[in-house]
Amino acid sequence: MIQSKGYAAQSAETDLAPWDFERRDIGSHDIEIEIFYCGVCHTDWHAIKNDWFPGIFPLVPGHEIVGRVAAIGAHVKKFKVGDLAGVGVMVDSCRHCEDCDNGQEQFCQVSPVQTYNNLGKDGKPVYGGYSSNNVVNEDFAHHISEKLDLAAVAPLLCAGITTYSPLRKWKVGKGHKLAILGLGGLGHMGVKFGIAFGAEVTVLSTSESKREDAKKLGAHHFVVTTNPEEVAAVKGKFDFILDTVAAEHDVNFYLSMLRTNGTFIAVGLPVAPMEVPAFSLAAGNKTVTGSGAGGLPETQEMLDFCAENNIVSDIELIDIKNINNAFERMLKGDVRYRFVIDMKTLNN
Amino acid sequence: MIQSKGYAAQSAETDLAPWDFERRDIGSHDIEIEIFYCGVCHTDWHAIKNDWFPGIFPLVPGHEIVGRVAAIGAHVKKFKVGDLAGVGVMVDSCRHCEDCDNGQEQFCQVSPVQTYNNLGKDGKPVYGGYSSNNVVNEDFAHHISEKLDLAAVAPLLCAGITTYSPLRKWKVGKGHKLAILGLGGLGHMGVKFGIAFGAEVTVLSTSESKREDAKKLGAHHFVVTTNPEEVAAVKGKFDFILDTVAAEHDVNFYLSMLRTNGTFIAVGLPVAPMEVPAFSLAAGNKTVTGSGAGGLPETQEMLDFCAENNIVSDIELIDIKNINNAFERMLKGDVRYRFVIDMKTLNN
Repeated sequence: MIQSKGYAAQSAETDLAPWDFERRDIGSHDIEIEIFYCGVCHTDWHAIKNDWFPGIFPLVPGHEIVGRVAAIGAHVKKFKVGDLAGVGVMVDSCRHCEDCDNGQEQFCQVSPVQTYNNLGKDGKPVYGGYSSNNVVNEDFAHHISEKLDLAAVAPLLCAGITTYSPLRKWKVGKGHKLAILGLGGLGHMGVKFGIAFGAEVTVLSTSESKREDAKKLGAHHFVVTTNPEEVAAVKGKFDFILDTVAAEHDVNFYLSMLRTNGTFIAVGLPVAPMEVPAFSLAAGNKTVTGSGAGGLPETQEMLDFCAENNIVSDIELIDIKNINNAFERMLKGDVRYRFVIDMKTLNN
Repeated sequence: MIQSKGYAAQSAETDLAPWDFERRDIGSHDIEIEIFYCGVCHTDWHAIKNDWFPGIFPLVPGHEIVGRVAAIGAHVKKFKVGDLAGVGVMVDSCRHCEDCDNGQEQFCQVSPVQTYNNLGKDGKPVYGGYSSNNVVNEDFAHHISEKLDLAAVAPLLCAGITTYSPLRKWKVGKGHKLAILGLGGLGHMGVKFGIAFGAEVTVLSTSESKREDAKKLGAHHFVVTTNPEEVAAVKGKFDFILDTVAAEHDVNFYLSMLRTNGTFIAVGLPVAPMEVPAFSLAAGNKTVTGSGAGGLPETQEMLDFCAENNIVSDIELIDIKNINNAFERMLKGDVRYRFVIDMKTLNN
């Protein structure tokens, strides 16, 4: 077995704290990654708090993982020792169902294995990236360019692909008016991709304090949604709204900002159902859709796109000993725009 | 002024009853249609009961209108006296906004005029098709083939286009598994169009009694949604679900029947908002969309398609004196599948 040290929640009631544990031995198609950085995602918090379903404890979160390959199994072809590698939201799937065949392994209906809070194919829990290393099948690791700031690449593995994938699916680009609802970890990536794809980007936020930030990120417009005049000015305006807000909010309020045939893309995943009047959709042939992460081929495509276009996340690098405080700040929206754990601090 | 006789609701509390009224004179671009038949739509009931918004009373409903041109204005080019003509859900629009330019006049943001329960451009109420005649701008009337049973054509003007339009927009056809939720006025047209477009069609109904009907209509499969085994068998099965149910129902229940990337199309318009968990959409990149009627070009396209493919509605022809009883039966789902008023009975 491979020794690993990390931070775990022992139950939904406890803070994260140091924990030593073991990972499986390196199989013939596995690689061992020495983890350098791991992003802090809202999902990590949902998982340790049992928000969506009961967690598997002890629970080591983290699915925005980057590091270097430290060892490889006998049949590994995709990586060699010393390569940079990244792991996102999943570490295994059946590889032969329709979803896997279509490169949407994140939806595998047969044997999906998420990066943490799941059981691996050996029936044992898998642990996430708030830790010193990881052992994964090579196909579920991605190549990372040496060109980019590695710590700032980490959030691409979840926040990046989660915003890239729907914007690509819906072919958002030149000539489109795109609104990004919420300017956090997902939202700021949505702004960057929207601009890179050629759309005219508006940030919608409840907070006037984000106006300057939106501008710095390159957004063309900013609307503070508590100002009725600014809201009235964008009625029927957008082709797409990418909703990145994790807290509950009134979706119908935003549907009126869509043009005829406009599309509202939900990636923020509040726990309570959205209330969507059928009338608000029918009056203008409008669409509400959701999107969950991305498959293996598209995640690599996104990473390559980011390397070519010099796109990374804006991050605040933290000591893992401050992770519980970081969660508190994240829940208040007090981070610009993603916390990333410097895994060297595990050893301090 | 043009004299007209019809059936009107004098208030939201009263039944429909005979009413004589006047329509505007025939303008240079108007035609007068002698109405032969008018379909009975759920929307007619919603309107006279103020379900969606306060009605304009006296209210003559009816927007599934077919008849013959009785007179034409000086500059009318599209019709001549004696032609068949049909009118659907709208009788005017601004003709120069983006929606009108795109042939989606039903969403005109400037000066839309629905067929009844609206004010015309002269500021006076317009009255629907439960009446002896109508006066409309020629562009808002459609050519009707002489080949089809005219009474059975009437419902195409609303139930037909409302189901045709989204199936066309989403390119439903060969290789797709399409479910039609609810087998009523809209649903039975959805089945006919789905089959005509080459899809594999399943009818989803709460009522076992519809099984034989679905088969007669040509549906390939039938699922009674109160049977857990039949429901389990269609989990993750459909590319599209066309939801034609006007009563409130649990949309989330049906989202689990969609395949990855599947689309739920709401055309039934319950009054209460749909409750849609963002998670149910994200887990499989699923989509909920709505669709409202269709524009002028697409309505004519649909009527032509029906003439070519011998598609009409299955109807029960009624005497207008029985309209209040017909509403009662419609609300109970006791009609196969659309009531159509025989306007000759106005004179009995």
